[in-house]
Amino acid sequence: MSSAAVPDQSPRPVRFGILGCAAIARKLARAMLLAPGAAVAAVGSRSEVKARLFAADNGLDVATTRLHGSYDALLDDPDIDAVYMPLPTSLHVRWATAAAARGKHVLLEKPTALCAADLDTILAACDTAGVQFMDSTMWMHHPRTAKMRETVDNKDAIGDIRTINSVFSFRANEDFLQNDIRVKPGLDALGALGDAGWYCIRAILWAVDYELPKTVIALRDPVKNQAGVLLACGATLYWSDGKTATFSCSFLTNLTMDITLVGTNGTVYVTDFVIPYEEKSAEFQVASKSNFAELHVGWDPLPSKHVVATDLPQEALMVQEFARLVQNIRDAGGKPEGKWPAITRKTQLVLDAVKASIDKGSAPVEVAS
Amino acid sequence: MSSAAVPDQSPRPVRFGILGCAAIARKLARAMLLAPGAAVAAVGSRSEVKARLFAADNGLDVATTRLHGSYDALLDDPDIDAVYMPLPTSLHVRWATAAAARGKHVLLEKPTALCAADLDTILAACDTAGVQFMDSTMWMHHPRTAKMRETVDNKDAIGDIRTINSVFSFRANEDFLQNDIRVKPGLDALGALGDAGWYCIRAILWAVDYELPKTVIALRDPVKNQAGVLLACGATLYWSDGKTATFSCSFLTNLTMDITLVGTNGTVYVTDFVIPYEEKSAEFQVASKSNFAELHVGWDPLPSKHVVATDLPQEALMVQEFARLVQNIRDAGGKPEGKWPAITRKTQLVLDAVKASIDKGSAPVEVAS
Repeated sequence: MSSAAVPDQSPRPVRFGILGCAAIARKLARAMLLAPGAAVAAVGSRSEVKARLFAADNGLDVATTRLHGSYDALLDDPDIDAVYMPLPTSLHVRWATAAAARGKHVLLEKPTALCAADLDTILAACDTAGVQFMDSTMWMHHPRTAKMRETVDNKDAIGDIRTINSVFSFRANEDFLQNDIRVKPGLDALGALGDAGWYCIRAILWAVDYELPKTVIALRDPVKNQAGVLLACGATLYWSDGKTATFSCSFLTNLTMDITLVGTNGTVYVTDFVIPYEEKSAEFQVASKSNFAELHVGWDPLPSKHVVATDLPQEALMVQEFARLVQNIRDAGGKPEGKWPAITRKTQLVLDAVKASIDKGSAPVEVAS
Repeated sequence: MSSAAVPDQSPRPVRFGILGCAAIARKLARAMLLAPGAAVAAVGSRSEVKARLFAADNGLDVATTRLHGSYDALLDDPDIDAVYMPLPTSLHVRWATAAAARGKHVLLEKPTALCAADLDTILAACDTAGVQFMDSTMWMHHPRTAKMRETVDNKDAIGDIRTINSVFSFRANEDFLQNDIRVKPGLDALGALGDAGWYCIRAILWAVDYELPKTVIALRDPVKNQAGVLLACGATLYWSDGKTATFSCSFLTNLTMDITLVGTNGTVYVTDFVIPYEEKSAEFQVASKSNFAELHVGWDPLPSKHVVATDLPQEALMVQEFARLVQNIRDAGGKPEGKWPAITRKTQLVLDAVKASIDKGSAPVEVAS
């Protein structure tokens, strides 16, 4: 039997429209080219010239990729299934709800909204339209994260996590600090908290299997620019069972992406959790049931290093997973996966509480649910 | 010329008396056997039998080591220069001042005192007697620490440190939690804060070149045993220039000894700062001027790992350094080195502030000076 006689059983690719040509969209365009089940069908920008330049610069086929000169035109394109939306946060409610209303599945850059109430508007629109929602938190999709999940879920190895520390910072240059959307109150008004802090909060929630903290207290002395946008801040999160997590996020210190989980039986360390040092593999370190060696002159057992290889970069794996969920809805009558909007919402609720605590001079703020 | 004709120029060893046979004293006895310039001349315990057993168990020459059946007898021994004192903290004022009054140099286990006022009594006694004081914080003397100092002092590589996280915990067993001196209010009343927290506070102060924080706020929900002794706690330290440091210490979670220093230009990581994983060498990791690789799919440059070998374990290097200072006083008319009591005192001042904040339900407490 020749292979030509077998009908192609692989599902039709999900046709993505990229709505906005931000720098981060370049990474996602590449991911869509790499990810099985995904295709870039269209690019929409405020000008068709920009859309064409973006397509040409990012290896898209300018002959077949439709180029739209407005966001509305992209959303009106009947031949796209889903939009990836790397717009400034202040535009998310408008354009994500517009996308959902036109039946497009929504892969939304983080921070997903300026506040949880805005996010709820977006999620309600997706829910009503029956489209998949996912935030673009790429590290969630790296196989290292799955391996760490297994480790953390192994109660014998790690026990109950009691203390978490996380830092995400990078040293922004002068141009960024003057001109980037993340320092502009009308665009990404949450500044470093929305950008870098998002990852810390997500990682902390991930570590505790998305159990919301009860109370949040911001660290004192957050740094703001003249427009009042946060450039550096942090908070401690308190759970009702006594767990605590502290994070710091900043545009003003060296690139740092670490999370340390301290459990009753074990400790997990990662120092590049958001973007692994290298694309092909990533590490984490586990110390389990660590003891002192005789006379306390060393450790026994020593911590172990775990290396997890990946064929595809984490952003391509994210696109692949999103496409799989969209195919299930589009082609098999499935329902949207509720896990992704649920964890987005919890991240945003904690972010809201941290922002509120900052605004109240580091007063304790209860996390809403 | 035969070697016999050359007079021995090396200084006479410092003759140590070990006052108390706590478990930690075993490690120090070994260190004194290993350290050039040091000798164990005597062991003092509440019973001579215990002193004899200790000597026999720890490779001391029972024929030449003098064994004293009381602490006073040890201190009255005219042929010891210095005492190492691993007593419960509540006994430090009495016995450290007694040692100083008899002209003995004092190597004192940590926490050095229950409060800074008690420490000041000890330091005043040492000052009056002209004897050297040093606390037994061993990791300070590892060559890795000196190498990290060089790194941190390199403003181009690290810049200004803005954020510090430190954890020191170990999982105590039931016997420890019931019977160890560190859970007894009459002995080491500071519990996990005095034991594990001491190291975090010292490391944080070390990292900022001993600049005292202005304000300390304890983490909420410290864990205490029924007698009110701290089993787990933490705090955030605030400096007037906006630097912050958060530490957690615990008897209830897996062995963890990490410190992360985040500077404007670089980040330093150590995960075994108190007791290196292995005795012969120790590592730390430095990320300096870290950037994202093209498209943010990795880091460039990658962090670098630094391995520092040591011929002697850190506790032997501590004994050697203490002996050198004692020899300088005893044999060369030198004065006590003021650096060591000064950093002990700063550590204790911060510890006092953390304790006060805990006692006040995590209210902000100004650090005394």
